[in-house]
Amino acid sequence: MSQIHHSIDKLQLTEHLHQAVSEQNSEYIQELLHGLVPEEIAEILEATPPKERYSLWEQLPSDVQGEVLGHTNDEVRASLLGQLDKHEIVELTEELETDDIADIIQSLPEEDKAGLLEKLPEQERVAVQTALSYPENTAGGLMSTDFIAVRSDVTLEVVIRLLRKVGSLPKDMVDLIVRDRDGKYQGALKLNDLLTHDGETLVSELVDPKRFAIKALTPDKEVANIFEKNDLISIAVVDERNHVLGRITIDDVVDIIREEAERTQMASAGLDDEEDLFAPPLRSAKRRSFWLGINLIAASLAATVISLFEASISEIVALAILMPMVASMGGVAGTQTATIVIRALATGKLGAKNSRKLIAKETLVGVLNGSLWCVLTGIAAWLWFQNGFLGAIFGAAMLINLTAAALAGAVIPLILNKLKIDPALATGLMLTTVTDSLGFFVFLGLATIVLAA
Amino acid sequence: MSQIHHSIDKLQLTEHLHQAVSEQNSEYIQELLHGLVPEEIAEILEATPPKERYSLWEQLPSDVQGEVLGHTNDEVRASLLGQLDKHEIVELTEELETDDIADIIQSLPEEDKAGLLEKLPEQERVAVQTALSYPENTAGGLMSTDFIAVRSDVTLEVVIRLLRKVGSLPKDMVDLIVRDRDGKYQGALKLNDLLTHDGETLVSELVDPKRFAIKALTPDKEVANIFEKNDLISIAVVDERNHVLGRITIDDVVDIIREEAERTQMASAGLDDEEDLFAPPLRSAKRRSFWLGINLIAASLAATVISLFEASISEIVALAILMPMVASMGGVAGTQTATIVIRALATGKLGAKNSRKLIAKETLVGVLNGSLWCVLTGIAAWLWFQNGFLGAIFGAAMLINLTAAALAGAVIPLILNKLKIDPALATGLMLTTVTDSLGFFVFLGLATIVLAA
Repeated sequence: MSQIHHSIDKLQLTEHLHQAVSEQNSEYIQELLHGLVPEEIAEILEATPPKERYSLWEQLPSDVQGEVLGHTNDEVRASLLGQLDKHEIVELTEELETDDIADIIQSLPEEDKAGLLEKLPEQERVAVQTALSYPENTAGGLMSTDFIAVRSDVTLEVVIRLLRKVGSLPKDMVDLIVRDRDGKYQGALKLNDLLTHDGETLVSELVDPKRFAIKALTPDKEVANIFEKNDLISIAVVDERNHVLGRITIDDVVDIIREEAERTQMASAGLDDEEDLFAPPLRSAKRRSFWLGINLIAASLAATVISLFEASISEIVALAILMPMVASMGGVAGTQTATIVIRALATGKLGAKNSRKLIAKETLVGVLNGSLWCVLTGIAAWLWFQNGFLGAIFGAAMLINLTAAALAGAVIPLILNKLKIDPALATGLMLTTVTDSLGFFVFLGLATIVLAA
Repeated sequence: MSQIHHSIDKLQLTEHLHQAVSEQNSEYIQELLHGLVPEEIAEILEATPPKERYSLWEQLPSDVQGEVLGHTNDEVRASLLGQLDKHEIVELTEELETDDIADIIQSLPEEDKAGLLEKLPEQERVAVQTALSYPENTAGGLMSTDFIAVRSDVTLEVVIRLLRKVGSLPKDMVDLIVRDRDGKYQGALKLNDLLTHDGETLVSELVDPKRFAIKALTPDKEVANIFEKNDLISIAVVDERNHVLGRITIDDVVDIIREEAERTQMASAGLDDEEDLFAPPLRSAKRRSFWLGINLIAASLAATVISLFEASISEIVALAILMPMVASMGGVAGTQTATIVIRALATGKLGAKNSRKLIAKETLVGVLNGSLWCVLTGIAAWLWFQNGFLGAIFGAAMLINLTAAALAGAVIPLILNKLKIDPALATGLMLTTVTDSLGFFVFLGLATIVLAA
């Protein structure tokens, strides 16, 4: 085997797999799946339409099935589990870590949950129940209960004897959890220190108290921030009494960060990131219609604004031709500001004082760009319709709407954030409502005063 | 010191800092900065308007300044470095790792780069030059040259003696790099194995050949994928001849993932994620005007479509009132589909076969939602304008535009991807052009045929 990584062409592989599935060539399927990690198989399953998905799934050995389920999104996981009977589900949890088992149990219908829990060995059951007792998006819901802890009053030699007895250590373990006699968390003993110090040294001499623990109810976003800020590999999770419950490793955190980015991206279009790519169309349509409904209300508002100026439009049809441009340019300028403000909010950068400065700066950017496009579009409209007044009004409306859009793009996310509403979710729609309605109002209003008077 | 993590209220802290800076209370500044990690200080600096930023920066000890620079965005880093003379820059690189030094050198004006390199100690200079010889967004540009390698033909006891001699091991080291006699990469020796096996064992018996290395020219996105798929903590980077150059650790990868998500989000609004939040307004306005210009062309196209139907609009002004709604609903439906397709493309899920299925599914979703809003909006328009024909035309245009929007939302990102253009960047604008122009055309066209005939 070569020791240099060769990236697999996943797309090609997926296509070959689909081919092999349709030909029911299970030997070729096995060959193609060989060497893939569970996360890759999970992605391939998500990318496979339902019918072929189940055929492919059935070809996986049951221990791989369990690991794969830990990486699919919720909807795909539930649909795959729906294909199995209870006995098969128990079987596939056998090789899994407790946090993955907890994921699977959460995807089962209510009546099957207890059944599966009962089937688990005592120790695992307790661990899974602990994990299930914390919300999924907290440290407690993320942690694995697979850790090694030592007491602070023993020597390194004793620790090394213990490790040799255990034989294989949990994955990604760079330090051991150190507890005092009462089982309370004290800090971490780095494997590095264990390797480079004399056997007679006491654990308490080397324990790093800067390696703090986090409470089980810490939200997952904050867990990710703590890892990122402190460049951690793993962290201990404790309960209210400072007793160690488990640990979280960096690979879970990488998933949180990736998922958080996806959730934000999907949410801004009113979508759910746990949805099956190949969900039944009726189900997808139903889910998305809510967002369309909200947008319809916003669009109706803009239409109402236009209807106020019916008389002017019937007199000068050019107004109807130009008005969407005012709205559209305002929309883009506002979105640019809003994107910057939303990102600054997400990284916790905007307080009372500097947000005032940012609003001022962004509004000034709006004035500057508004002035530029005021002149350019004003001249263009003048030439197009051979009407200087119309050009002037068009340019003025551009300037006013771009300035207002920048102001709104800065203020709307700040207000939403104050109201504890996720700005990434609702800003887009609210901003468009403002830039459309205001754009139409300013342009048609000015025209009515100047031209149609 | 408490061993449980207490999150700092960064906003409050930032405000206090700004207050302290404006009062030039350097004692209070020091007190507030105490206990913050460099990444947190970098974020605070980014969130501080330029004038106060420099005052705050000057309060930092020079070793902290160096570390902080490794975490700010490019524009802020360049502006802070601009405040220092050469001597000060050399001083602040003294405590830094070579990859951070490389970052700083890249931010310097061309004429200062060589000067700084010359001032570095021999060994560091070579390491920094190696890092600089690879593009920033490749494994070679990311790697640190701080690693420990052992030969495969020695015993664990020899390895442990070596580690004791070295004393402190590089951060996040979970395994040692194993090379053969010719210095070629062979695999990794886990610290776990080192701890749990007998001293007489040969490294070659325990070396894990599955721990592959990556080539120095591997792009950063792929590096992130490899880490994520294989749940890695660190990976060795090799040159073309399989000689080890350095290693990349997971904390760099977390930064790549976060930055990649930010870049995508910013790019979709035509923004640069390395821009200073408080950049001079004229500079910001100039950068953003390009995107506004592109949008103006798109909006002009839609205006041209409207101008084709001038006669119909002057006859029935209701058309001007309702037409933005058709465009707006199409825009939202198209964005929903496009968001899903862009995400599926980003995770490498769409090949020839399943993208055909996805296009079909999404178009069907468009038909279903189109039908729903066809009926609802058709009736609403009928009641509003007391005109059954107008309602029917409005509803029909809604159905056609929502269906076309879903189709376009699926097809546009797929085509852009085929053309090697980032779909996250260009889809939004192209899609709006289609949904606006087509929405206007269908609605006004139908109206012209049926009503104005």
